[in-house]
Amino acid sequence: MPNDLTASADLHALMLAMGESARAASRVLARAPTAAKNRALEAAAQALVARERTLLAANAQDVKAARADGHDDAFIDRLALTAKAIEAMAEGLREVAKLPDPVGAVTGLAFRPSGIQVGHMRVPLGVIGIIYESRPNVTADAGGLCLKSGNACILRGGSESIVSNQAIAACLALGLKEAGLPEAAIQLVATPDRAAVGELIAMERHVDAIVPRGGKGLIERVSREARVPVIKHLDGVCHVYIDERADPAKAVAIADNAKTQRYGTCNTMETLLVARAVAPKLLPKIGRIYAKKQVQMRCCAESRSILEKAGVTGLADATEEDFRTEWLAPVASVRVVAGLDEAMDHIARYGSQHTDAIVTEDWSHAQRFLREVDSSSVMVNASTRFADGYEYGLGAEIGISTNKLHARGPVGLEGLTSLKWIVLGDGQVRD
Amino acid sequence: MPNDLTASADLHALMLAMGESARAASRVLARAPTAAKNRALEAAAQALVARERTLLAANAQDVKAARADGHDDAFIDRLALTAKAIEAMAEGLREVAKLPDPVGAVTGLAFRPSGIQVGHMRVPLGVIGIIYESRPNVTADAGGLCLKSGNACILRGGSESIVSNQAIAACLALGLKEAGLPEAAIQLVATPDRAAVGELIAMERHVDAIVPRGGKGLIERVSREARVPVIKHLDGVCHVYIDERADPAKAVAIADNAKTQRYGTCNTMETLLVARAVAPKLLPKIGRIYAKKQVQMRCCAESRSILEKAGVTGLADATEEDFRTEWLAPVASVRVVAGLDEAMDHIARYGSQHTDAIVTEDWSHAQRFLREVDSSSVMVNASTRFADGYEYGLGAEIGISTNKLHARGPVGLEGLTSLKWIVLGDGQVRD
Repeated sequence: MPNDLTASADLHALMLAMGESARAASRVLARAPTAAKNRALEAAAQALVARERTLLAANAQDVKAARADGHDDAFIDRLALTAKAIEAMAEGLREVAKLPDPVGAVTGLAFRPSGIQVGHMRVPLGVIGIIYESRPNVTADAGGLCLKSGNACILRGGSESIVSNQAIAACLALGLKEAGLPEAAIQLVATPDRAAVGELIAMERHVDAIVPRGGKGLIERVSREARVPVIKHLDGVCHVYIDERADPAKAVAIADNAKTQRYGTCNTMETLLVARAVAPKLLPKIGRIYAKKQVQMRCCAESRSILEKAGVTGLADATEEDFRTEWLAPVASVRVVAGLDEAMDHIARYGSQHTDAIVTEDWSHAQRFLREVDSSSVMVNASTRFADGYEYGLGAEIGISTNKLHARGPVGLEGLTSLKWIVLGDGQVRD
Repeated sequence: MPNDLTASADLHALMLAMGESARAASRVLARAPTAAKNRALEAAAQALVARERTLLAANAQDVKAARADGHDDAFIDRLALTAKAIEAMAEGLREVAKLPDPVGAVTGLAFRPSGIQVGHMRVPLGVIGIIYESRPNVTADAGGLCLKSGNACILRGGSESIVSNQAIAACLALGLKEAGLPEAAIQLVATPDRAAVGELIAMERHVDAIVPRGGKGLIERVSREARVPVIKHLDGVCHVYIDERADPAKAVAIADNAKTQRYGTCNTMETLLVARAVAPKLLPKIGRIYAKKQVQMRCCAESRSILEKAGVTGLADATEEDFRTEWLAPVASVRVVAGLDEAMDHIARYGSQHTDAIVTEDWSHAQRFLREVDSSSVMVNASTRFADGYEYGLGAEIGISTNKLHARGPVGLEGLTSLKWIVLGDGQVRD
């Protein structure tokens, strides 16, 4: 076995070679006809289904190794493939094939006084690095989205799912080959060496954007160390604010749905803010639903007093830190606020600029909330759970961004592209 | 004098306080009515003109100190204010006041199957850090653009122009005050301590984007060290490719204008590529113009041979490095290429993704160049010198970006904003 230094130099050379071939492939992909990209996606989907047994056998190796390493059931659950999961991956690729191709669209072309026409053309970003953890389906999902948006990609999945990922990547390669597109358009980093991530996020010349998908630890590390721009979301500390002019039925339904429809998603509400005027009436109703669903409530003094008087159980005192916490669990922070301004101050202070909703029938309050809350998704009278590429009509999403530049919120095909300027002239020169 | 450590801690606290007040001001500015922002711009313009004598006196201090420090004439030229320059700054602010306000525009609002309406709202980025060198007019220009786009800003000009910048910033503050907007919306870092830049570009919580304006050294340092996203362009290695189907008159006029109209700008052509089929006919004509204007030509062997045969002077052999060089001077790299593909390969290899133009009457060549050249501005039959916010109709520009994410090319008010999702519901919850 080589010493560390040699291994590093080898890895550096390996990653550089991947970067170079990805860059070359990206030029071909950027000009690839829509039909060729769709053909590749459909052929890859076909290959996934046709190779079901191979994929399950590959995945069984990963699962066996993960069990031997002592990973828990939740981990194994994310790692394990089933026939149904393979069909879902294939269907995902077919769906992406059906989506409109964003590349090449020209907008805003208009004549300028000089006689030139100036407009925008939508173009791929180039090469995308995707860094993810145990779920092998990300290999197909992310690969498919990058392909359709005309980007080459370098995929770096979790080392525990490496055999599964290779089997899936082989299907994608088959699709590319069948469509006459370069196989280097979708490359998988096949070494389990964790230093590969460090190399990938530093290849400014060969990689145009990094999309990290995984736990907070991964995203923090990537954000801290990356020399390449990162499209990411770190936290989803989402709020529902129930205004004093809220429709009570809508308020209760939204507070329930936003918290309890799924606990582990980034668009799940973590903090419920209730206007003082309606708290005594609405909080007990919501609190009883939470209690019944065994959602623990971390309350400010005022909300705790109201809920206790109403006989609601499952209460605890909220700390300052609780209001910054993404629970991802049956826990909700609860706070009574004076009204709209205090609610917006709370969101500005403790929120993560992901998704925040107001429940109100007051026109001016709704308008102010929409305008002033600086989050990637701002909602009126709807559950935060709607913040999702499918629900927004993107057809698919590579992730949800809390960046302020480029793409905010659910990122679909368009978020993987950019706009360049085009200028059409007839020989014009500048005075 | 305090020791370094104390100075650093003080500076850190100072910058943090500026960041915090900028963040607070940005929330007010984001919701400020267009009329108030325009009022502030107009009042600032008025103050600049009214305080002409104060500004000139302040500037004289800077100029005197710069001379004493041994700065050269070009430096003094950039630093010196005149009555005319002050009027130009004021007029710039008035022009920005006249531009449409991009903030709050809602686009794409459409119903989804769930019954929610989903669309985009254009919003300011928040707090912009501007880092610039000796030109004091950037204080007014950048401050005005940030204000109109609803962003707070922290300005960090060159230490040599600090007295001038303070006098200009005082006029902006007066404008803000008169319009009832927070003065912290436009803050100037008043310490000459160079470590302030390091602090500014690391304040992720308080600064949303950095715009460095200045020489390559500054931009490289900021890009390398920033923890905040940077909107920048590093190099302008712009190309004109004269295709074999070029109109000869247009080719000569564009090659002349793109190189010689101004030498020091980032959108000036640095490399001329000529298709082999037309090089013997067109290169001598262009070469004679360059020679007459004393533009030195760094030639490939083939172009040198053609130009020498035609008796053109001012020739030298081009090195590999020459093709990567942004001359910013009366020098042009010249190369004969086989045709479109070789031209595009050259641009992909040596270019800086700034601005590249093709001169051709061939429809398919023009279409391929537009689609395949991955630069922030791609042109057909027009001089690269048009790559400019004013020429593109942005009204003003904070700079030209060669980033691939967010804003590419000339960045005006819209480039200082982003899109958030808005969701309008009627009590919808997710199934």
